[in-house]
Amino acid sequence: MSKLPHIGTSIFTIMSKMATEYNAINLSQGFPNFPVDERLTDIVAKLAKENVHQYLPMSGYPPLLSKIAVLIKNSYERVIQPETELLITAGATQAIFTTIQALVETNDEVIILDPSYDCYEAPVLLCSANPVRVALNDDYTPNWDRIEKSCSSKTKMIIINNPHNPTGKILTESDFESLETLLEKYPDIILLSDEVYEYITFEQKHISAHSREKLLNRCVVVSSFGKSFHVTGWKVGYLVAPEYLMKEIKKVHQFLVFSVNSICQVAISGYLDLVSVTEIGNFYQEKRNYFRQLLKESQFELMPCEGTYFQVVSYASISDKNDVDFCKWLIIEHGVAAIPISTFYADGKDLKLIRFCFAKDNATLEAAAKKLCAVQ
Amino acid sequence: MSKLPHIGTSIFTIMSKMATEYNAINLSQGFPNFPVDERLTDIVAKLAKENVHQYLPMSGYPPLLSKIAVLIKNSYERVIQPETELLITAGATQAIFTTIQALVETNDEVIILDPSYDCYEAPVLLCSANPVRVALNDDYTPNWDRIEKSCSSKTKMIIINNPHNPTGKILTESDFESLETLLEKYPDIILLSDEVYEYITFEQKHISAHSREKLLNRCVVVSSFGKSFHVTGWKVGYLVAPEYLMKEIKKVHQFLVFSVNSICQVAISGYLDLVSVTEIGNFYQEKRNYFRQLLKESQFELMPCEGTYFQVVSYASISDKNDVDFCKWLIIEHGVAAIPISTFYADGKDLKLIRFCFAKDNATLEAAAKKLCAVQ
Ligand SMILES: CSCCC(=O)C(=O)O
Ligand SMILES: CSCCC(=O)C(=O)O
Repeated sequence: MSKLPHIGTSIFTIMSKMATEYNAINLSQGFPNFPVDERLTDIVAKLAKENVHQYLPMSGYPPLLSKIAVLIKNSYERVIQPETELLITAGATQAIFTTIQALVETNDEVIILDPSYDCYEAPVLLCSANPVRVALNDDYTPNWDRIEKSCSSKTKMIIINNPHNPTGKILTESDFESLETLLEKYPDIILLSDEVYEYITFEQKHISAHSREKLLNRCVVVSSFGKSFHVTGWKVGYLVAPEYLMKEIKKVHQFLVFSVNSICQVAISGYLDLVSVTEIGNFYQEKRNYFRQLLKESQFELMPCEGTYFQVVSYASISDKNDVDFCKWLIIEHGVAAIPISTFYADGKDLKLIRFCFAKDNATLEAAAKKLCAVQ
Repeated sequence: MSKLPHIGTSIFTIMSKMATEYNAINLSQGFPNFPVDERLTDIVAKLAKENVHQYLPMSGYPPLLSKIAVLIKNSYERVIQPETELLITAGATQAIFTTIQALVETNDEVIILDPSYDCYEAPVLLCSANPVRVALNDDYTPNWDRIEKSCSSKTKMIIINNPHNPTGKILTESDFESLETLLEKYPDIILLSDEVYEYITFEQKHISAHSREKLLNRCVVVSSFGKSFHVTGWKVGYLVAPEYLMKEIKKVHQFLVFSVNSICQVAISGYLDLVSVTEIGNFYQEKRNYFRQLLKESQFELMPCEGTYFQVVSYASISDKNDVDFCKWLIIEHGVAAIPISTFYADGKDLKLIRFCFAKDNATLEAAAKKLCAVQ
């Protein structure tokens, strides 16, 4: 018997593997292909020779904790206590899993929007709790009426992802007002806000849960350095939570992983003295604009992209294959790997949409676009 | 409400923190203080400049998987399939947590020996399952009769830790025969064998679950490079399981952490070409001998130490304080930090025993021993 009978190998693993097999350009799994900033790799090379190879404290490297507190202060004017409200995790995925394990109990309900990133459901199921999927509107904005109708005394948590993977949608002031009004009626609901793309937004400014006074006493905010510093393989993320929740989260963390990779924590701590994470937004805005321009000549229809490094496109005018088959065909016949959007829907809804990752150097984007423009 | 009401901050965090505060010699939390082999830090420094900063595959860096398979073959004559039977984890702690989450269900029972390392109980409780503690004999050998009496149709898993932290005991041929006889009667019980100190044994040779033909089809073996290569901060461990169990474990792993730190995986893979892990046993045997000799003049009574880098001692002739208070007193009054053994007992049994970590350079051991010899 399986505890997760409906879960198979993640689509990111499947598509990246197939991309390698067919030597396709991999725009599927979200990771950058540019070189990491030399200043950061210099730090790592230097640290290798220093005394940074033993366990760091369970909550994280203290100077890194302080610098993240400063970053949050500068970005959102929120003051946190690094010792009691901040935890370094082995990536955002571990932050999310640990938070859910610590706070969600048997038979609780957890609201997960639909579509959504694929790592929220399994940890809820492993708590013998019930994921309650609530469909986004057709334009991928949250439908707050529907969300409210799905809330009850059983609801322990609402998970939001802002900016949203895969759709690139970001939440507005009015979304937050609706959320706050709803949560006032349910004082026990915890908000889990996955903001790993917080610094990758474009025309509109990202509104973080960090900056919402009314949410802070019940909100866990998750982020990660993998996306902002082009080091997805390092697996250094973090979460911020009020102390009464953090106490429970740390109990699980200390027996789930105990502590996080030492060299990379110390390296990021050093690097934060040299750079501003916020520059990454402009960098990706140019990438997005360039990639969209390159695809103008193609048969794909471009959906809006307000944040993240993902571009969703419709292939409805090209094929009536389902999106998984279309992605396989695209790899085999045209040498470009994407992610089918059905994978983010609980019921696998097929809207003839696929997702490209544009966190790639221009040569790669050009080569991919050339192939994609030939698709018809 | 807490899901883990009886769990506080781990003793390792408390004692290491107190050691820092009082500027004591830290023989509490188990980590080495020698420099890491230059050949390994050279590899890291070189890798920093290479393309090793993005997600590795979910199961681990393929060359590292192959080399671990060779290591297991050379050490124990066991042949494993790296693609389907091996998983890299963020340290042994994550391996253990993930295995339990994947395989243990509500109301299952899991047998945990008493005393035992402190990370087995919390993941069982988080599965709404029941830890069943079975006392070791007074000489810390397992009492197989008692273990068998504790088994029932509810028993899902037995956890062994060999070599055993904190007691340094290793299992014998006769222990394995008893275990195998017992398990024949319970075909559904899974064995979780935590062998993170597998290469740190002394007069007697370590018998691994890997080498027990009869156990392999139901055994998950956990190990780690942190202990063998003096890099506890890297958090790179692994587990081996038969494919039908691994399928379930990988489902959890991919949503718990997805993948493990890339640079350190690639570095270990390179280093495995240069060294033999098995040399570490001789290295620590000398350390143990030296530390025991240094303590001969002290009032502490030395318990046997067959493996691990921990030495348990009795302070019964010195003080009748309980062991937690004695450890605090030892830090404050004598400047040496240890771990109280009561922490490893489910009921906090106080036997006037404490544990020292001797994974330290000789100067540190000498300085600590000098202080310890003054204790009376
Ligand atoms: C953890 S692998 C997936 C990476 C990612 O965030 C994505 O592709 O959406
Ligand atoms: C994970 S911190 C504890 C290290 C250790 O294995 C021990 O001290 O027993």
